[in-house]
Amino acid sequence: MPNYKAPVKDLLFLFNDVMDMQSKFKDVEGGAEATPDMLEAIFTEAAKFSENELAPIYQSGDEGCTWDDGVVTTPKGFKEAYAKFIEAGWTGLTGSTELGGQGLPSSIGVAINEMLTTANWGWAMYPGLSEGAVATLETSGSDQQKQDYLSKLISGVWSGTMCLTEPHCGTDLGQMKTKATPNEDGSYAVNGTKIFISAGEHDLTENIVHIVLAKLPDAPSGTKGLSLFIIPKFLVAEDGSAGERNGVRCGSIEHKMGIHGNATAELNFDNAKAFLLGEPNNGLNAMFTYMNVARIGTASQGAAAAERSYQGASEYARERLAMRSISGVKNPEGPADAIVEHPDVRRMLLTQRVIAEGGRAMVTYASQFADLYRAGKTPEVREAADARLGFCTPILKGFITELGVEAANHGVQVFGGHGYIQEWGMEQILRDSRIATLYEGTTGIQALDLVGRKVLMDKFKQLNIFTGEIFKFAKQYLPWKAAGKNKAMRKQAWTVTKLAIKWRIMGYRLAMGAKRNPDSVGAASVDFLMFSGYTFMAFMWAQMSGVATAQLAAGEGDAEFLQAKLHTAEFFFQRILPRAEMHAKTMGANTESVMAMPTSYFDAS
Amino acid sequence: MPNYKAPVKDLLFLFNDVMDMQSKFKDVEGGAEATPDMLEAIFTEAAKFSENELAPIYQSGDEGCTWDDGVVTTPKGFKEAYAKFIEAGWTGLTGSTELGGQGLPSSIGVAINEMLTTANWGWAMYPGLSEGAVATLETSGSDQQKQDYLSKLISGVWSGTMCLTEPHCGTDLGQMKTKATPNEDGSYAVNGTKIFISAGEHDLTENIVHIVLAKLPDAPSGTKGLSLFIIPKFLVAEDGSAGERNGVRCGSIEHKMGIHGNATAELNFDNAKAFLLGEPNNGLNAMFTYMNVARIGTASQGAAAAERSYQGASEYARERLAMRSISGVKNPEGPADAIVEHPDVRRMLLTQRVIAEGGRAMVTYASQFADLYRAGKTPEVREAADARLGFCTPILKGFITELGVEAANHGVQVFGGHGYIQEWGMEQILRDSRIATLYEGTTGIQALDLVGRKVLMDKFKQLNIFTGEIFKFAKQYLPWKAAGKNKAMRKQAWTVTKLAIKWRIMGYRLAMGAKRNPDSVGAASVDFLMFSGYTFMAFMWAQMSGVATAQLAAGEGDAEFLQAKLHTAEFFFQRILPRAEMHAKTMGANTESVMAMPTSYFDAS
Repeated sequence: MPNYKAPVKDLLFLFNDVMDMQSKFKDVEGGAEATPDMLEAIFTEAAKFSENELAPIYQSGDEGCTWDDGVVTTPKGFKEAYAKFIEAGWTGLTGSTELGGQGLPSSIGVAINEMLTTANWGWAMYPGLSEGAVATLETSGSDQQKQDYLSKLISGVWSGTMCLTEPHCGTDLGQMKTKATPNEDGSYAVNGTKIFISAGEHDLTENIVHIVLAKLPDAPSGTKGLSLFIIPKFLVAEDGSAGERNGVRCGSIEHKMGIHGNATAELNFDNAKAFLLGEPNNGLNAMFTYMNVARIGTASQGAAAAERSYQGASEYARERLAMRSISGVKNPEGPADAIVEHPDVRRMLLTQRVIAEGGRAMVTYASQFADLYRAGKTPEVREAADARLGFCTPILKGFITELGVEAANHGVQVFGGHGYIQEWGMEQILRDSRIATLYEGTTGIQALDLVGRKVLMDKFKQLNIFTGEIFKFAKQYLPWKAAGKNKAMRKQAWTVTKLAIKWRIMGYRLAMGAKRNPDSVGAASVDFLMFSGYTFMAFMWAQMSGVATAQLAAGEGDAEFLQAKLHTAEFFFQRILPRAEMHAKTMGANTESVMAMPTSYFDAS
Repeated sequence: MPNYKAPVKDLLFLFNDVMDMQSKFKDVEGGAEATPDMLEAIFTEAAKFSENELAPIYQSGDEGCTWDDGVVTTPKGFKEAYAKFIEAGWTGLTGSTELGGQGLPSSIGVAINEMLTTANWGWAMYPGLSEGAVATLETSGSDQQKQDYLSKLISGVWSGTMCLTEPHCGTDLGQMKTKATPNEDGSYAVNGTKIFISAGEHDLTENIVHIVLAKLPDAPSGTKGLSLFIIPKFLVAEDGSAGERNGVRCGSIEHKMGIHGNATAELNFDNAKAFLLGEPNNGLNAMFTYMNVARIGTASQGAAAAERSYQGASEYARERLAMRSISGVKNPEGPADAIVEHPDVRRMLLTQRVIAEGGRAMVTYASQFADLYRAGKTPEVREAADARLGFCTPILKGFITELGVEAANHGVQVFGGHGYIQEWGMEQILRDSRIATLYEGTTGIQALDLVGRKVLMDKFKQLNIFTGEIFKFAKQYLPWKAAGKNKAMRKQAWTVTKLAIKWRIMGYRLAMGAKRNPDSVGAASVDFLMFSGYTFMAFMWAQMSGVATAQLAAGEGDAEFLQAKLHTAEFFFQRILPRAEMHAKTMGANTESVMAMPTSYFDAS
């Protein structure tokens, strides 16, 4: 397992040069604090923490958590690292200043989360889950609830979870069975079992605040009958500290393919004392805030897997000697050339790099809307940002996590047989990355959210806004404009324009197909999502190329960094982007090819 | 983990109806024995063994082997199953009748190996590795060596391994350091360390016959200086039994991502007594026999992963209830519809099925050449078959194993979060499948073998023969021919014709590109391999469709089975085959997009 070097330079390039976040921070509460100097200082400190405290305990963390009669112990070093983390104030970075936070824009937190995850996926999920609880309490909590719980979550002395899934239902929350019955004191008694609760039980914090979906006795059936509750592991004592033990117990933790460092708990609620969060029967709406936060975080996990796996594979490829380069000996003193000289190894490394850097750019782009959504200065700004973020999240989450698995897979492949051996750590990254296409809504669910809610029900509004932005960007590279004198940029601009046009057409086709056969939307959904992802990523690579080209022409910036960016962009346009066309073609296939076979034929013959 | 039901019906369809193996068996020694009745009996018995003895100990086998001071213990039940296996005579199925085997065609063994692997990958590798040793001894062993070792391997009381890899070299065998020095008695003393030796140490057999590549003292450098040796764990005693312990010890076994049931050994040779196999310095050539055998076996592992994962996912999808079908309620009595009703779940299941059945067809097609290569009745027949098999193996091995991982990945995805939990067994299939693109030559190595040796050095001869066969097949569906009246078949025939033409053109382009820039071949190689694989698979699906269509028209066969075949074929042509075009487009990209970036830029920024 290689050391981790956090991509501070790339993040600053994205924040300062590509996305011009400074101009956007103007509309965000607390944005004025986030000057370029401040950004650099924060990213550098977060990089140090990730590289020095978390990365060294990533591979050992694969040994996993242990469960003993409801008590969960995290891997060696996790608790100490968490103590340092909260001591340095990292949990409060984007939290409300009134409750002890630093009130910085969310986008900065998103960037730091990527570093934490890359350094140590399983560890980073503990504070990551708290953020979901924070977001939910921020929007739906009463003042007293904020005082009681939010301040503790912001300081990090307590952590949070989100409890949705039950053994018989994950996505289909309408089937939920967990019940909440009113107590005389205004609280509720919750009974039921929740599974797959990440960070659901552990030894890092003195208390755990569970945010739980459950049904009230008189609730309407289906998802409209879900209410949200706060269920602390320890009830809040008079003085605000963790008091009496509540009726929630960890029955077991799962044995999983990966992310062994994070405890995935089964939680049994046995007359657990619960406090209603927000309005009754409005739990699912209150969860949407959380979901947008969680999904952008999960999307960046795809980039994280790609980054860590790239760093490992690239180091190995420059050291491992095998065969001679077909175009001439590169290492005459050695018995063979480094495998990085072989074209197919480069192909895999560049693919990983495209995914890491392109995915990071996509997440950063979308996080500007997260900033405005959470802390925009007017309701109009917040509402518009909500819609823009809502369009981006299923694409980000579905697409980048799928590509993250692909990237981690290439990392194993670059190592040859050694990639399959645990000692090298590459297969751990692959196993860890595999969760990301499953939790927080599978890729299929993201695709249905995109085509159903975000394109068709939205009547193409957001699709038109996004593609309109692509057209606007591309126009600056028209042949008679200054920037258009650069041939490579003109070509990239023309490519993204064509993709944006095609994206719109495909959206309209979805709508027409839906009228004839509702199943056509489902059959096309994942291909539409992947096409959207490649187009989104192409837009990012074109923007990065544009900035790199301009900076090189002006003699600004780090020339090697910028040149590498242009080479990687070229690889993306030439050798990855043809996939977009394939997805467009596939989704154009007839629906019968998916639906005509009778269900009974799916039995193994 | 679901029960396993072996695809006997599909195998008989392929052997009897699609490939007409009976007519091909005529040219194979021992082929006359393999009547359709015999085939059905053998496949049915092998299915029973796989389903009843091996499948039940697959998941428990994931707990792995244990090593204690050089002694390896296999998982519970493995030894007992192996004893039953050899008692029933399975190891001798295709072995020479003179040495106690049954002398049946190799293709039958290949089919049975798929069942064994699907039922229990880790277990199946033990007899699988013996087959490599058998093949090598058959072609290169002296009569005495055959008597001493081959008979024991055929009866299965001893097992075999192939020892190639060393810590610093896998593919690049020229860097090998293991040395063999002559003893006075005509034997050799071997010293060195071999790693990644599958089935290298275990408790299933009383002796293990290692086939080892090593260098003689006066050997030329590089791969031309490698010789092959037999190094038994126990030397053969006077009476032919396992006698004195030889100087080979298992230093450790690897901790791997998967295939935990199979011991991957580090073997230390310390003056191990060795016997030259074949001619000095001709070891690598002698290994090619083994490689063709091993690679076709590994290819079928891709189909095996797809089959087992499909069976699990399909059962789950028909039972798990979540959400309502968008095209109307399918399960009005239940709280939700089975997820198999959702188009995207079907898309994943059909993709798995396309890979399992299409991969099996590809392997069966190629195994006709394995039959003729190994036991063809004339040298001309054997030589021609060698060339045809040699062209097929890199495509089979590279392509089907990559798709096997994809299929296993879909299987995890169909289960949602449960797919990530070990208890369900789906993630084990994915972890196990991941080895197949690495061992026996990575996908990248297969691709170089294909483009370098099998297309360019072959001057397109085999490519022309293969594509010529496609043209011949497609012609029977010309509009004015009887079979061409079927519109779907005419379309499929036209599609494979276009692909075959494109395949030839791409081959010629590779040759032209190679003259300008040798790196262009390496940059295009994996895309060329994948294009070749999809075209090969399309040819198989078109053939299967043709037979299914004809049988349905004639009222023959199992109508449900044949209908399912046509639906699956339609899915392949509509929704999987667009990938071929994408690979063609990608390999047409300029070489600079892969090679232009300076090596130093690959350092993480």
